[in-house]
Amino acid sequence: MIYFFIDRWRIRMVHFDNDYTEGAHEKIFERFIETNMIQTAGYGFDEYSNKARDYIKQATKTENIDVHFLSGGTQTNLIVIAASLRPYEGVITADSGHIQTLETGAIEAIGHKLLLLPNKDGKITATQVQKLCEDYWNNKAKMHQVQPGMVYLSNPTETGTLYSKNELIHLSKICKEYEMKLFVDGARLGYGLVAEKNDLTLQDLTRLTDVYYIGGTKIGALFGEAVVVTNNEIKRGFRSIVKQKGGLLAKGRALGIQFEVLFENDLYFELSKHAVNLAMKLKNTFEELGIPLKYEAYTNQLFPILPNKTLKNLQEKYIFLEMNQEDADHTLVRICMTWATKEENVNALISDIYKLMKE
Amino acid sequence: MIYFFIDRWRIRMVHFDNDYTEGAHEKIFERFIETNMIQTAGYGFDEYSNKARDYIKQATKTENIDVHFLSGGTQTNLIVIAASLRPYEGVITADSGHIQTLETGAIEAIGHKLLLLPNKDGKITATQVQKLCEDYWNNKAKMHQVQPGMVYLSNPTETGTLYSKNELIHLSKICKEYEMKLFVDGARLGYGLVAEKNDLTLQDLTRLTDVYYIGGTKIGALFGEAVVVTNNEIKRGFRSIVKQKGGLLAKGRALGIQFEVLFENDLYFELSKHAVNLAMKLKNTFEELGIPLKYEAYTNQLFPILPNKTLKNLQEKYIFLEMNQEDADHTLVRICMTWATKEENVNALISDIYKLMKE
Amino acid sequence: MIYFFIDRWRIRMVHFDNDYTEGAHEKIFERFIETNMIQTAGYGFDEYSNKARDYIKQATKTENIDVHFLSGGTQTNLIVIAASLRPYEGVITADSGHIQTLETGAIEAIGHKLLLLPNKDGKITATQVQKLCEDYWNNKAKMHQVQPGMVYLSNPTETGTLYSKNELIHLSKICKEYEMKLFVDGARLGYGLVAEKNDLTLQDLTRLTDVYYIGGTKIGALFGEAVVVTNNEIKRGFRSIVKQKGGLLAKGRALGIQFEVLFENDLYFELSKHAVNLAMKLKNTFEELGIPLKYEAYTNQLFPILPNKTLKNLQEKYIFLEMNQEDADHTLVRICMTWATKEENVNALISDIYKLMKE
Amino acid sequence: MIYFFIDRWRIRMVHFDNDYTEGAHEKIFERFIETNMIQTAGYGFDEYSNKARDYIKQATKTENIDVHFLSGGTQTNLIVIAASLRPYEGVITADSGHIQTLETGAIEAIGHKLLLLPNKDGKITATQVQKLCEDYWNNKAKMHQVQPGMVYLSNPTETGTLYSKNELIHLSKICKEYEMKLFVDGARLGYGLVAEKNDLTLQDLTRLTDVYYIGGTKIGALFGEAVVVTNNEIKRGFRSIVKQKGGLLAKGRALGIQFEVLFENDLYFELSKHAVNLAMKLKNTFEELGIPLKYEAYTNQLFPILPNKTLKNLQEKYIFLEMNQEDADHTLVRICMTWATKEENVNALISDIYKLMKE
Repeated sequence: MIYFFIDRWRIRMVHFDNDYTEGAHEKIFERFIETNMIQTAGYGFDEYSNKARDYIKQATKTENIDVHFLSGGTQTNLIVIAASLRPYEGVITADSGHIQTLETGAIEAIGHKLLLLPNKDGKITATQVQKLCEDYWNNKAKMHQVQPGMVYLSNPTETGTLYSKNELIHLSKICKEYEMKLFVDGARLGYGLVAEKNDLTLQDLTRLTDVYYIGGTKIGALFGEAVVVTNNEIKRGFRSIVKQKGGLLAKGRALGIQFEVLFENDLYFELSKHAVNLAMKLKNTFEELGIPLKYEAYTNQLFPILPNKTLKNLQEKYIFLEMNQEDADHTLVRICMTWATKEENVNALISDIYKLMKE
Repeated sequence: MIYFFIDRWRIRMVHFDNDYTEGAHEKIFERFIETNMIQTAGYGFDEYSNKARDYIKQATKTENIDVHFLSGGTQTNLIVIAASLRPYEGVITADSGHIQTLETGAIEAIGHKLLLLPNKDGKITATQVQKLCEDYWNNKAKMHQVQPGMVYLSNPTETGTLYSKNELIHLSKICKEYEMKLFVDGARLGYGLVAEKNDLTLQDLTRLTDVYYIGGTKIGALFGEAVVVTNNEIKRGFRSIVKQKGGLLAKGRALGIQFEVLFENDLYFELSKHAVNLAMKLKNTFEELGIPLKYEAYTNQLFPILPNKTLKNLQEKYIFLEMNQEDADHTLVRICMTWATKEENVNALISDIYKLMKE
Repeated sequence: MIYFFIDRWRIRMVHFDNDYTEGAHEKIFERFIETNMIQTAGYGFDEYSNKARDYIKQATKTENIDVHFLSGGTQTNLIVIAASLRPYEGVITADSGHIQTLETGAIEAIGHKLLLLPNKDGKITATQVQKLCEDYWNNKAKMHQVQPGMVYLSNPTETGTLYSKNELIHLSKICKEYEMKLFVDGARLGYGLVAEKNDLTLQDLTRLTDVYYIGGTKIGALFGEAVVVTNNEIKRGFRSIVKQKGGLLAKGRALGIQFEVLFENDLYFELSKHAVNLAMKLKNTFEELGIPLKYEAYTNQLFPILPNKTLKNLQEKYIFLEMNQEDADHTLVRICMTWATKEENVNALISDIYKLMKE
Repeated sequence: MIYFFIDRWRIRMVHFDNDYTEGAHEKIFERFIETNMIQTAGYGFDEYSNKARDYIKQATKTENIDVHFLSGGTQTNLIVIAASLRPYEGVITADSGHIQTLETGAIEAIGHKLLLLPNKDGKITATQVQKLCEDYWNNKAKMHQVQPGMVYLSNPTETGTLYSKNELIHLSKICKEYEMKLFVDGARLGYGLVAEKNDLTLQDLTRLTDVYYIGGTKIGALFGEAVVVTNNEIKRGFRSIVKQKGGLLAKGRALGIQFEVLFENDLYFELSKHAVNLAMKLKNTFEELGIPLKYEAYTNQLFPILPNKTLKNLQEKYIFLEMNQEDADHTLVRICMTWATKEENVNALISDIYKLMKE
């Protein structure tokens, strides 16, 4: 392999900039190979997809849900929203929401406007949502505005913060009051569910939302997200919308097998814990060294504000995502741990940070 | 493995009904595993995707093309068409075209009407296209109709027939004359390119069309299609459209690696030949037994018209796609060979057919 | 006025080619002027629109309908369909339907596929619709096709034929059975309702359909169609969809006043009768002269098959719409009578036809 | 007439809340009546539309423009934008822009995202636009954002402010630099062009923008906007897009006649001046009485901040649009003058304000 050859001659940089730098958990490839020549039906009617759906019903302790497997986050968001709204309805989201900032207008491209609320640490509150709805429904001058039809959250959020059960209960209540759907983008759901501070379960999510998804791409899968639909209106024709938007794989097994492996022995949660444990270890380092974190950190993402000099030195070996110049001497960066992060790399990073900060 | 266990007790039916019943070629999984923990950039900027793009440039003997990797046929068709047309333009297609019959209105869902031409054995002609364009442009009463902006073909077609180089030259000429794009859906392209009767090369396709794709899902890949764009107008912002329509995988390597493996030693063509050779073997059987084929067959698909009694007997072991009741005693079925079809299964099928027809 | 000046010097051709060649009934302009400086609320909340809605409720003898005023047929069709379907649903229509042939892909542009049925004299039958639905719902192979969600009819049809009450009852029944909406495009509704052969009333239409519209543009109005919505699902947010699609006039009075005038003393039906009476007079001429009509004619449109020589002579004074070359010596043309057609012009035409045919 | 009867018994409130409370200038109705029975071609091919197009070419002193007549502002905005952008492109607009705030998501409904810039008095600057474009094009992290493809302005803005020629020149320059279209929404264009402070001409607009429209609905027409297209890319198929979006009136004369009348003797500018003169008269009153205006006022709209007590008293006779509660004792309101505003009503208002403020 040419790649290993190269590695002998130069030091490969270590990526901490995002959570999709490696392939997939090895058990997934093992299962692909084991089952490879077994012939199955296409389009998600295969036995692996069925098994995976069963596992997810067990994990959510709910029978009357529909589970669909899709390829990525943007695809999932646009399909879920297409299935949920009438043409004149829009989606309430934090202004930092992934659908607003990083999906090239995917939601607008299917015809729906985003109704932005200013985020606080990546989150929005039931009170904010209520205020927006009251304004819309009570104010005659609003009659030519877009009707709020859905609330979109991500949990963990883009900045790694978490919604509490109580916050979700309030948001769910407001949604019901104004006949809106509640949708939770769980691209990093596992990393949230295993967090020390988390008090939400899959069962809670299933009960409190109309639809959400369990992210695989960032947690052990090569690609794939599992959508859980509880609302009967959204269930109607969902599969047809998946096909119409180009989201239905002929070889549905490619997704089914991955979620079967991830959920048959709680591998999904194990991998999530691995990443979060490493993140907490690094967090301790930052705390000890007095390096501030921009956002409360309990999941796989850390947002330290680093002295520029330290950062520059670290960047000889490590890749981070630079978010913002906080002041003349400090930069906000994102550091991600994943299911695939090697502990030795984190240890090396910690040691390097100590060294640089003590100089 | 539970699946092997089951197999000991019952005979698993052998699928010949479509070309996506198995997983992927084993070399793909090997490569996935070898490269798994190498960290790469996301969204198609990884080294494997780059390598795969290089291989395809070599195979097409053309440098100034853009190559994009997508997940499936419907997704590819809708993204290519979105990138090609202005809002009021429609797509000329055979009434048997995949975009018309089996994509749940994916093209209409992005706003474009299909302009149907009656197919002959799955194909349309330059003359038909010319007639439609003349009618549109010369007839004042047509002014409220949709302007033809693209011609969509599949090669091989849905019924396994092939366009000759000469036919494609004529179609290309008409398209240029009426300022339309020419798009070839190559979901089964490999099976066509290796056919005895074929006189088209990848280089011809690159020269004669504005955009086409090389299908992977049906030929060795777990999923994936490689889009080749030659037209500069279509190139503009193509990547943004991919992202917007939910077609951009975070781990672009999942596609890049597959096409790297398929194209690094002509594996793609080898696998195609395997399927076509088996199909030709079975075709001989049909010819010898006087079983008529509905469509000329040179690729991996056969469309025999079987006596109902024979069919019923065969269906105890084999699965075919029933297409149509041709008369009281005969049924048109589709039989697909693929890169993964085992020769022993084809031999068994041939032997069973002989037995049943001689009875 | 320059136009009258010109008329002194040359004979202006008489249009019989369509039903929108003149302005509007004079009473409409009178009312515009009378009410011109009265200030009203905008966007259809004015007193004239309210009055017009009341008149239509009286005419349909139904209270629980929503009535919306729109500007033209294509706009109405696309707004009604947007309000009626989920994304994966399509519209069953005759292949001769206006939405298929003459609206520049307006329905596809809002994302919905048309499911075509071959027309017989512009009409489709309950049996055809039932067959299509059975095929879709019973056939596994259809699972990637578009789900039928609505039946679209026009009455009178594009070729001037009429649905009987019995036919509409059957279509309505099938729609209910398959949970589809029934939508009647009434661009020429008045001309149908007053036809000798008609047995449908506005009350029947209101009871049997989910939504239909009463065409004004072709019957006395300068522009405007009145949509009658009976289905509660379609009512939801209809007004927002009108605004979103650009169909909501700031000065809603411009539409309200027109329908107030047309419906306050049955002017709409009076004008319809005027046109139909003239058409029947001309129809008698054709019958007497043995000139065949392509389609049964009871409304304002006639489709005679004229000898080319006669046609050419008539075209020195009159404009018809040439539809088709029926054979070497005969041409199918469309002749429209309208609310504005002058009886003297019809008399002159009749006299000229007699003369030419007797030569 | 029942309305006059009512007026004898109660005082009708005087509307100053918007600029579409009356019908149309009387000359328009006169012309409708004069030309009513003249038969014309449909869909904008009539002689009145042609004449109106000629007048607008004269007024802009430009020959190679396309002029299209549409029915209202939202319709115009969505058609222009559909004709201008590729799918992944978005529209830069002030966050106070009409397309953002009051069109029920019309632009998102055709697939395009709005890229918001914070407005200053309703306006945005070339510097803001440049900054947004630099961020998009230079920042790799922006690669999944929507590409800016157009700048949308309204002139006068929603708050009645005006762009100077110099400002427009700078905006035009930035648009060219980043290959974006410049679109000016001129729903109230006339009121801007005749303003004392204005230094822009129709000729400037034609030269500096890619497309703009001359608003009729708010300035003398019953309904109607005249789109002026200078950019050849936008010209392509514009008419087909108009038809597809439901914007093409069968009786195009209904629009053509209005713009013919408005532009044949500068009536459009005369009517604009009438409104602006009345607004300036009222502005003097506010200045004399020390009532502050929220926004610089040179057109037909005034935004005074009124003491609540004064406002309450005035609201017994007059209707204003309440915009915002500025503090416990003051309210921001909008007062519109139009082509139809009676001087006597303005005089009465002025006199009432004096009385109330002097108490």
